[in-house]
Amino acid sequence: MAVNLYIPPESNIFAVAGVEIGTAEAGIRKAKRRDLTVFRLAQGSSVAGVFTLNRFRAAPVQVCEAHLAEGRGIRALVVNTGNANAGTGETGLQAARDTCAALAGLLGIEPSQVLPFSTGVILEPLPLDRLVAGLPQAVDGLGDNNWFAAAHSIMTTDTQPKIVSQRLALGDKTITITGISKGAGMIRPNMATMLGYLATDAGVAPALLEEMARSIADRSFNRITVDGDTSTNDSFIIIATGKSGVRVDSASDPLYAPLYAALAGAATDLAQKIVRDAEGATKFMTIQVEEAGSSEEALKVAYAVAQSPLVKTAFFASDPNLGRILCAIGYAGIADLDVGGIKLWLGDVLVASEGQRHPGYQEADGQRVMKEPEITVRIALGRGDVSDTVYTCDFSHEYVSINADYRS
Amino acid sequence: MAVNLYIPPESNIFAVAGVEIGTAEAGIRKAKRRDLTVFRLAQGSSVAGVFTLNRFRAAPVQVCEAHLAEGRGIRALVVNTGNANAGTGETGLQAARDTCAALAGLLGIEPSQVLPFSTGVILEPLPLDRLVAGLPQAVDGLGDNNWFAAAHSIMTTDTQPKIVSQRLALGDKTITITGISKGAGMIRPNMATMLGYLATDAGVAPALLEEMARSIADRSFNRITVDGDTSTNDSFIIIATGKSGVRVDSASDPLYAPLYAALAGAATDLAQKIVRDAEGATKFMTIQVEEAGSSEEALKVAYAVAQSPLVKTAFFASDPNLGRILCAIGYAGIADLDVGGIKLWLGDVLVASEGQRHPGYQEADGQRVMKEPEITVRIALGRGDVSDTVYTCDFSHEYVSINADYRS
Repeated sequence: MAVNLYIPPESNIFAVAGVEIGTAEAGIRKAKRRDLTVFRLAQGSSVAGVFTLNRFRAAPVQVCEAHLAEGRGIRALVVNTGNANAGTGETGLQAARDTCAALAGLLGIEPSQVLPFSTGVILEPLPLDRLVAGLPQAVDGLGDNNWFAAAHSIMTTDTQPKIVSQRLALGDKTITITGISKGAGMIRPNMATMLGYLATDAGVAPALLEEMARSIADRSFNRITVDGDTSTNDSFIIIATGKSGVRVDSASDPLYAPLYAALAGAATDLAQKIVRDAEGATKFMTIQVEEAGSSEEALKVAYAVAQSPLVKTAFFASDPNLGRILCAIGYAGIADLDVGGIKLWLGDVLVASEGQRHPGYQEADGQRVMKEPEITVRIALGRGDVSDTVYTCDFSHEYVSINADYRS
Repeated sequence: MAVNLYIPPESNIFAVAGVEIGTAEAGIRKAKRRDLTVFRLAQGSSVAGVFTLNRFRAAPVQVCEAHLAEGRGIRALVVNTGNANAGTGETGLQAARDTCAALAGLLGIEPSQVLPFSTGVILEPLPLDRLVAGLPQAVDGLGDNNWFAAAHSIMTTDTQPKIVSQRLALGDKTITITGISKGAGMIRPNMATMLGYLATDAGVAPALLEEMARSIADRSFNRITVDGDTSTNDSFIIIATGKSGVRVDSASDPLYAPLYAALAGAATDLAQKIVRDAEGATKFMTIQVEEAGSSEEALKVAYAVAQSPLVKTAFFASDPNLGRILCAIGYAGIADLDVGGIKLWLGDVLVASEGQRHPGYQEADGQRVMKEPEITVRIALGRGDVSDTVYTCDFSHEYVSINADYRS
């Protein structure tokens, strides 16, 4: 069902010097599948993370934040699927800490140098014994280019692995950027979690990498919505090992802008892949709001349109139902919105202006655009010069089936 | 498909002295169905209205507000189905004004004494000629107890007419309250519109009735959600004719409280009927939030739960998926929410406390509650003493079918 989700051939997936990956079958929820992934990072790597704003933050998210704050240098990540370790109280926190301690013991590092991640069923105790028993297998398998295996191992109900990889010239050197992601916001809440990991062999000062992680998350993972549900475990991590010899320590460095652009591009690709593989998705929609007075305003409108079940079902039906889009703009919460100043395009077709259907609009033109699998909705508010963009998908029978039948 | 929607027998629907109703087949969108309704109100009636906050307010909504503001005393209402006269610009406004003028001419009153309402397709010009041609038939049919016919005539894609009626003692007299409603928020956006009309033969001072209308709308029609979409035409009207001889002119009158309670009860019933008849609904859910720090906070949590597609599909599946509810509470937007203080009940079953599954909770107990057609979700936030309640329904295959296949 995934919409135009590109999976690069393994030969185009490049190792990132300073990152080793190993996976294991720990039997956390199901037997005979790889459900445990370990990343070992070279000493001196910078690591930054952005985490869910949900108040029910899962135990591993709380431990990640604490370990990053300690600032001893992150040397390993451990990711399990099958159980989210969320809504598990103090026992869950201890289980996340014990996971870090067990991996630290195997790798000869400190527990606070490990970041733990969990995704899967909520409100069930983490099977710590099975997880810890699986760690040696993952550590034994640590290797340079196991990104593809990792993309598979972190999947829960994803239908496809999500992976990006590229090499690019930066200054007089070549750097590599490779990353993986899984999930789609809270689309499978008992198998919750959007996870994204992006690594480069460029070197970046830790404080700068943190700024970049926030800014990049805001234009990638924070710009996708499937059903508007933010999970308890969402995490996005950037790793910069520095092994390429390229180093960027300030935003005024001439290499900063191209590095930022490349990382942001890779993150956006990973985020969009999540939407492309969203439950039951048959269409990939880009909601682009222009001429807003502020970014907040642009996003209010973009999310109102992107999250309206009525808009989403109309896209599923390939029905150019303009009333539903205009209506969503109208209730987006901009109190002084002058609907007479709004223009709306479906793809390249101007469908509404001055608060009504555009005089030249023909239903057949709207129909043509709506039949495409990738559709851009462009909305000009006539209030300023700020733009922002949100990515989403349509809402199908399959979505209800998956979410109603799940957990059985 | 409607969930426990009670339709009183015609013998239990009481006329409201001072209100006459007539209907007509005007052929606005379809032939051979009553699609035009006229209310004539006795001189001296108080009329108050509450209208949509959508910025794309339909033309009739704008004209209603203007006519109420003129304050010449409303003497008639006219409601058409089949066309919403929304997104129709200046032409649409003129059509709404012309409708009022035509009815005023037939009834010998001023155009500004008429309130117009439209519901149906958005972005299509109102067929003013057919509407005006139908008015004489509706006026000829004006009679004391045509409420049932009116409940049918204002339907668009509703499967059932929605009507309440009661008599009650007030002081030493008996008063009557009868009302009708249609729609379900923006569940059928091209046949948009929630409409509610509530009439009593009690007399109420106009300014007081306006306060009452706002307050009552806030606890009834503003507490229901099907898909979170607010239509362009939503309107709620209270009429107080005074013909019973009972008169309430201030909130300190001893009859005020019982009158308010009766009107609010009738409005809540009409609002709930909309949810019960919502597209594809198989469950009626009451989301009750307690121990909130403010009403705003309580409503944020209630709406996050009520509008989560994941929660709604879980209810459709009768799946006590606690993770989805807790997750929605977590992202409701209360920045300093302490999840350790939250309690969650499904019906009478305590399912979660202290941020995790309640130790005594058995899945079988949750399952028992979820199989009922009417379910109360109770959430105690542990932050204060404010409560608020929202009504919603589940989210089924049928919802997607109706909204994806509609307009064909």
